[in-house]
Amino acid sequence: MTTEETPSQNSEHIRTVFFVSDATAITAETLANSVLAQFHGLKYSRYRMPFINTVDKAKEAALKINEVGKETGIRPLVFSTLVARELASTFNEYCNAFVIELFRSFVGPLERELGIPSDHSVGKSHEIGDQERYNRRIDAINYTLAHDDGQTNNGLDQADVILVGVSRSGKTPTSLYLAMQYGIKAANYPLIPEDFERGVLPPALEAHKNKVFGLSISPQRLSQIRNERRPDSKYASLENCQYETREAEQMMWREGIPFLSSTSKSIEEISATILLKLKIKADPHMGM
Amino acid sequence: MTTEETPSQNSEHIRTVFFVSDATAITAETLANSVLAQFHGLKYSRYRMPFINTVDKAKEAALKINEVGKETGIRPLVFSTLVARELASTFNEYCNAFVIELFRSFVGPLERELGIPSDHSVGKSHEIGDQERYNRRIDAINYTLAHDDGQTNNGLDQADVILVGVSRSGKTPTSLYLAMQYGIKAANYPLIPEDFERGVLPPALEAHKNKVFGLSISPQRLSQIRNERRPDSKYASLENCQYETREAEQMMWREGIPFLSSTSKSIEEISATILLKLKIKADPHMGM
Repeated sequence: MTTEETPSQNSEHIRTVFFVSDATAITAETLANSVLAQFHGLKYSRYRMPFINTVDKAKEAALKINEVGKETGIRPLVFSTLVARELASTFNEYCNAFVIELFRSFVGPLERELGIPSDHSVGKSHEIGDQERYNRRIDAINYTLAHDDGQTNNGLDQADVILVGVSRSGKTPTSLYLAMQYGIKAANYPLIPEDFERGVLPPALEAHKNKVFGLSISPQRLSQIRNERRPDSKYASLENCQYETREAEQMMWREGIPFLSSTSKSIEEISATILLKLKIKADPHMGM
Repeated sequence: MTTEETPSQNSEHIRTVFFVSDATAITAETLANSVLAQFHGLKYSRYRMPFINTVDKAKEAALKINEVGKETGIRPLVFSTLVARELASTFNEYCNAFVIELFRSFVGPLERELGIPSDHSVGKSHEIGDQERYNRRIDAINYTLAHDDGQTNNGLDQADVILVGVSRSGKTPTSLYLAMQYGIKAANYPLIPEDFERGVLPPALEAHKNKVFGLSISPQRLSQIRNERRPDSKYASLENCQYETREAEQMMWREGIPFLSSTSKSIEEISATILLKLKIKADPHMGM
């Protein structure tokens, strides 16, 4: 690339972003996404550099990043979660980039606040810390898979939450996210036309109403999603979607089931709302 | 609590930690987990405060945190991702805690580096940014569920990765994590005694060998996991687990399938390794 190209690239705000970590790089990536989301119009390509856990690898990573910087003519951005001092200092010594260091920014001040030294040990945040807690998380995933889409009424008493809603309102992805991220046993139950005719919740749920949470969705969006699966069916028609969502919402109002609309919400936003509303005190597992 | 109790609590390093956010609080929590994992022996209870998106709520959150500080006699820790200036400044004005602010630490320096102002707008990082990309993620989750445990050979050409391994080696949770977090279509296939007798991979996988990745596991751990499901069965016996894992590893060696042991690895670590080894350029979705 010639230097003449640099100004136009700059004006379009195209950057190369690297996530450098001694472990999975998940924290570095999450952090980077959050921070960079604040820059509207910034375009960037991302490169993951996980498991940089030796001095040699730290030097190699720095040199690779420098190469990209030379090729593009623009200083790369680096989000680093290198913990061990010798890894971080080697990396910084060689790397010509704009480096944001998570641990240097926060661990030092925390050491002073807590009055205890940090470990400076690699790979802590996403490894299996507590085996029992990790097992509970895997159990929650298995429970959620076995209790997807009303497959069984057995063991509903073990559920932390039971999601209800019409078919394709987002119950399955949300249940799996709750299980995966928070170790929550999340069953889910479809609300189907037979339930609307009877006018009451599926009988199996009556005893567990205090942990039932509803998902609704706009009929337009529902029809769009269903049409991808079964084009031009009655199931996917706007008229039927209007009927089902109206009936489902009325039933949830009648039964006093809290619900939200999933139409423009991500599974993260839906999950955070459910935890808040049901006052579930979930251990986050993202940090394991 | 009397002040006499404070020193002993302090010496045990018990703290109360709050995650304060104008949106899901997922970034604040991930960051906190990573940073606090560096303090071995630190015990803390966690409180999520998501959706603090008005000045009134920011003040209310600060006062609640102050109350806890008074009750426990120890200054609480706060990880905050409040973005909007008026929310952050109201919160800081009222809150008596040790506050770590993600955006203040990084967004300012980035503004200078990039030469563009940030948006300071709330809820960016986990909302549905790009609807098409979000749909691909949901599609990946559905694909992965439909292709769990060798349920079907249809559509294997669409898979980004196909995990293989003996029953209970961790294929399902890993596949779901890859789909959920990275929007990757991850099929998985069990390796069963019939495959070992035939001595070759399941025939459906032959055409897709370049995207097959194996999970192995120690026979002891496998036997332990299987015993929880089917106690005292032949399936769960150590002898059978030794046989299956040995045969599976030999087959993967013979077929040139890369594999790793899931025994002491979290699904995050397994997933990061798979992305690296198969050179999959996945968009992270954790930041949506």
